[in-house]
Amino acid sequence: MLEIEAKAAIENKEEIKQRILEAGGKYIRVETQSDIYFAHPSRDFMKTDEALRIREAGNEYTLTYKGPKLDKLTKTREEIEIKLDDPAPMAEVLKMLGFMEVAPVVKTRSHYTLGDYQVALDEVEGLGHFIEIEKHADSYKPEELVELLKSLGVEESKMERRSYLELLLERNYQINPE
Amino acid sequence: MLEIEAKAAIENKEEIKQRILEAGGKYIRVETQSDIYFAHPSRDFMKTDEALRIREAGNEYTLTYKGPKLDKLTKTREEIEIKLDDPAPMAEVLKMLGFMEVAPVVKTRSHYTLGDYQVALDEVEGLGHFIEIEKHADSYKPEELVELLKSLGVEESKMERRSYLELLLERNYQINPE
Repeated sequence: MLEIEAKAAIENKEEIKQRILEAGGKYIRVETQSDIYFAHPSRDFMKTDEALRIREAGNEYTLTYKGPKLDKLTKTREEIEIKLDDPAPMAEVLKMLGFMEVAPVVKTRSHYTLGDYQVALDEVEGLGHFIEIEKHADSYKPEELVELLKSLGVEESKMERRSYLELLLERNYQINPE
Repeated sequence: MLEIEAKAAIENKEEIKQRILEAGGKYIRVETQSDIYFAHPSRDFMKTDEALRIREAGNEYTLTYKGPKLDKLTKTREEIEIKLDDPAPMAEVLKMLGFMEVAPVVKTRSHYTLGDYQVALDEVEGLGHFIEIEKHADSYKPEELVELLKSLGVEESKMERRSYLELLLERNYQINPE
């Protein structure tokens, strides 16, 4: 199963919210998501374009592996999710195996549905506002996601394939360039 | 929390079973346990004396990490267990992260309780019969486990610190030494 996903930076959040609702989208809920990302003991996830994280969202905890992105426009990739009753023992096992915690990513996410897609309007601590559209399926066309974003008033030039983690690490590097 | 544990090879299974019951032990149940052990992508678990496995026992699935053994007599070590609803996605995540499946270990385990201890009489495919005694606590004395085993008719010289996985790998190596 693929996680078919595209993301873009936005400044006109209220306008986009209106367009989602006018296009038949439905507001679901808002929640805070705190992600801890892990570095691999012997592989550079930045180079291999993979990710491993534990997410806390409300009282739900999930271990997620993300494989390399599959095209040049969107963030579509393989994704494996495992629900956890308790995040602590999983984090402990990962640390014992040599995985290291990297920067946390904290955001307020407003969830919408729009057709087959889940739409998220994110306010990410330290980064600002973004829109993410996502669906799970076995195949996809990158152009379909670009068109949907455009129809919501999102500029194609603002599409962003880098993860929030990468953006945060790059920003911190610019602030403190060793 | 420590997994305080000792193991020994046995030939007199019926006699030991009798001694467990005479000492006040209780028979709990018998089950088949199938373990898949994983090799680390960049660390030799045989050298570091760690282990990572997914166990299937009845309809229960568990991911277990075991740290290095803490003394020269017993198998006591740190242990972290995580219950899994489904073993497949966890095995898939481990493979994507570079962990490799090594030999499976399959055994029929009869469970008993004896005081604070859990006692297992194991028949391991390819290896024969063993007794394991185990409790979970924060501290321990190795001699206590040795004395308990002796009281059940187990010879100290038959105590075994190698895991079933190690014993199976060594046996296979002796049969097929490249």
